[in-house]
Amino acid sequence: MFESAELGHCIPDREYDRAEPKLREALLKAQYELLAHKDFPVIIVIGGVDGAGKGETVNILNEWMDPRHIVTHAFGEMSDEERERPRMWRYWRALPPQGRIGILFGAWHSQPIQDRVRGRLDDTEFELALEEIVHFERMLADEGALILKFWFHLSKKAQKKRLQALESNPHTRWRITDTDWAQFKAYDRYRKVSETALRETSAAHAPWTVIEGTDPNYRYLTAGRTLLDAMHKRLAGARPRVSQPAALPEPALDRRTVLSSLDYAQRMPHKEYERKLEKYQGELNLLTRHKKFRRKSIIVVFEGADAAGKGGSIRRITGALDARQYQVVPVAAPTEEERAQPYLWRFWRRLPQRGRVTIFDRSWYGRVLVERVEKLCSEQDWMRAYHEINDFEEQIVEASGVVTKFWLTITKAEQLRRFRERQKTPFKSFKITPDDWRNRKRWDDYEVAVCDMVERTSNRDAPWILVPANDKYSARIQVLKTLCERIEASL
Amino acid sequence: MFESAELGHCIPDREYDRAEPKLREALLKAQYELLAHKDFPVIIVIGGVDGAGKGETVNILNEWMDPRHIVTHAFGEMSDEERERPRMWRYWRALPPQGRIGILFGAWHSQPIQDRVRGRLDDTEFELALEEIVHFERMLADEGALILKFWFHLSKKAQKKRLQALESNPHTRWRITDTDWAQFKAYDRYRKVSETALRETSAAHAPWTVIEGTDPNYRYLTAGRTLLDAMHKRLAGARPRVSQPAALPEPALDRRTVLSSLDYAQRMPHKEYERKLEKYQGELNLLTRHKKFRRKSIIVVFEGADAAGKGGSIRRITGALDARQYQVVPVAAPTEEERAQPYLWRFWRRLPQRGRVTIFDRSWYGRVLVERVEKLCSEQDWMRAYHEINDFEEQIVEASGVVTKFWLTITKAEQLRRFRERQKTPFKSFKITPDDWRNRKRWDDYEVAVCDMVERTSNRDAPWILVPANDKYSARIQVLKTLCERIEASL
Repeated sequence: MFESAELGHCIPDREYDRAEPKLREALLKAQYELLAHKDFPVIIVIGGVDGAGKGETVNILNEWMDPRHIVTHAFGEMSDEERERPRMWRYWRALPPQGRIGILFGAWHSQPIQDRVRGRLDDTEFELALEEIVHFERMLADEGALILKFWFHLSKKAQKKRLQALESNPHTRWRITDTDWAQFKAYDRYRKVSETALRETSAAHAPWTVIEGTDPNYRYLTAGRTLLDAMHKRLAGARPRVSQPAALPEPALDRRTVLSSLDYAQRMPHKEYERKLEKYQGELNLLTRHKKFRRKSIIVVFEGADAAGKGGSIRRITGALDARQYQVVPVAAPTEEERAQPYLWRFWRRLPQRGRVTIFDRSWYGRVLVERVEKLCSEQDWMRAYHEINDFEEQIVEASGVVTKFWLTITKAEQLRRFRERQKTPFKSFKITPDDWRNRKRWDDYEVAVCDMVERTSNRDAPWILVPANDKYSARIQVLKTLCERIEASL
Repeated sequence: MFESAELGHCIPDREYDRAEPKLREALLKAQYELLAHKDFPVIIVIGGVDGAGKGETVNILNEWMDPRHIVTHAFGEMSDEERERPRMWRYWRALPPQGRIGILFGAWHSQPIQDRVRGRLDDTEFELALEEIVHFERMLADEGALILKFWFHLSKKAQKKRLQALESNPHTRWRITDTDWAQFKAYDRYRKVSETALRETSAAHAPWTVIEGTDPNYRYLTAGRTLLDAMHKRLAGARPRVSQPAALPEPALDRRTVLSSLDYAQRMPHKEYERKLEKYQGELNLLTRHKKFRRKSIIVVFEGADAAGKGGSIRRITGALDARQYQVVPVAAPTEEERAQPYLWRFWRRLPQRGRVTIFDRSWYGRVLVERVEKLCSEQDWMRAYHEINDFEEQIVEASGVVTKFWLTITKAEQLRRFRERQKTPFKSFKITPDDWRNRKRWDDYEVAVCDMVERTSNRDAPWILVPANDKYSARIQVLKTLCERIEASL
């Protein structure tokens, strides 16, 4: 993998001086075209060995193009806000919006490589971390991002020479620290680990370009041309399709579904409800004051048919909590900023720190529900969403999150009754809109979508709890009780 | 101030039970009206003595209304991201957008009170901190926010009783810590300091409501009714005008201005430019690697006539920096999220951490320039902006920020020459838009606005540097040289 980057590539100054102005102008033009269309973001990931000119190259790219529309991020130590959330949170925060170029130093690949070199990850864990990266980059590509990854390489001999040169020059001496020499000692190991990482995370939609770092001219021109070609190709063509669904989900032949098998007839008497409400609210309150609770973040998702009682259930939960520790996020149409980012971005930004509860009133499942049914996104978009969502929730769970998802379901007749009741009650009439009636017409489509969703995204760590909610009392108690059990089991 | 909150106010249960459902329904209705109109945010600040039922009251408000549209924030220890920025940054982050209710626990008033009680602030410093709060709240009110501040009070005797009661109940014992008793010992001092704080920070547009905390019924109903009345009043009426300009700025009688006195004739030969460019870029680079630089944040503002050369000057600065340590923020029209917040919010969110450089290509001065000239905001909006901007920059400087503002200015004839040149060069034609020609017609209006701006917002700590830029070389060198001097003086 690194062989061709140890050949001593170099470009004579004269050739460089001839090529540079043209390249520069073309890059700037491409950047402005990108900015004008705002169709996709360009993500440039920078990695490689120390002393191979990563920083200089990024500086040159910033100099060649308009630095006002480039966002450069270097990831060092995590801030405490970042430590409180899943590992990838900090990278989601740093993603450039459509139309911009984001240059990311030491991005998501960096930590796993370091950890493997230092033995903090074993081989399997390392493979797993690389798998996660592949998924993440595939998602970015599916969302339309143009992803380029530059790896700046030096042979062992060249690195030693470079470090020595930097050290002996009084102007650059500050750049070389003991850490650099310690890293140099691990050169062979680092090389081996990086090679694995590059191999495993190279894909057509997010290829690594290995660039020999010895000669600045070669390094700059190679990076610049690679970027230019990729942008030209992308600006000229349509958005490439990365994930193609092989087959769409089909309803079961006998038409039996998880929804049709629920018991909608159950009723809970008011007295029993009041007793149980107090019991489980008290229990929930106690749980949130448990010492270990501070190390967990609780994510609760509410989805369900219109008028199924999501709001009422949410209020029975918040009623048991201290207002300082929870946040309810009502999910509506995405804002401008959110539309310029991958689909899950707006949910990532709402993830709570540890010790807190976030309740989503509707959620990331919008993609496989309303967006699928109303054809607001393409087939491949909602098809790939199942996997992306599973991945998202898995990352939350890994970072001590407790994810519980409630689907509140009522029968079609019960919905009609509730709609009419809402229309009659002046105080509740704001709750019923033309959208609700339109959604109702799509009842069957929604049922299919819900069944697919449950089948594909319910799992032990982030289960879908199907709650028959024709009877509000029993529904609310089921929600509270389940939530208590889930939190208790996690502590 | 606290006398009437020590009378033993209480509401019998029967009366409470009668009043509560109506209040609740009315609050919910008002909340939905607020949400539907999205005209203004409601900011509820919560303060008071421990054990006076602050938390319970906020929980009740969340229970009465729809918790999905209330954002509750409690401010404890600062995160390290917050510590890296001006003191008020964390509060700006937590402001509710228009249409929402934000409940802020231990908000901006809290720290100064604690610090004064513990002797960390002397009287003058305390007064100054309160003054800052007054300005901040006035700005919020000017921006349209409905601000309510609830202070929950207990007499010394009542607080003691309450703490003891909480401590003896096994369900609430966890809430009382040694800190609470330590705080109790300082009751008299705390009372005195709070009284000063409440008096100094009460204003018609942001009044404190002192609520006796002994009786829950009284406490809840008082908070609820106060909120309801304020929302009703505001929903029924127009946005109140808080700051009224007494007089508008007038041009000097002799028509001499800071702009007309500049020397536009200076020229720098190319050779000299190249030499000086290298010198000052090298100097700037060295400065940013100074040990003390890590404790400073550098904020550079570029404003100027169209085609005055802002972009070119910015690139001469970024060319001297490492891409990892700077960010250029091109200021365009605000996004949806930004429009739902006070004017300065979108600039607060871009403030750099220490050790970093942020360059604003156009800035918060848009309000007193384009928005004033094009009448995009009202007279009182731009008139009050001078003070708000000064306040903003003062806070940055206090938090180790170095603020430097460049006004790049060219003559009208030179602008015309550059516009025509841009139109002719295919590669530069994207840089010239109909807006530019329109702005040009307003040349004189802009001159007046600029002179007012400089007069009102230039000061030793955040000076306006007027740069005659008919000659690009001398302009760029002046910018670089000034920036170096400013940073050097700060280290």
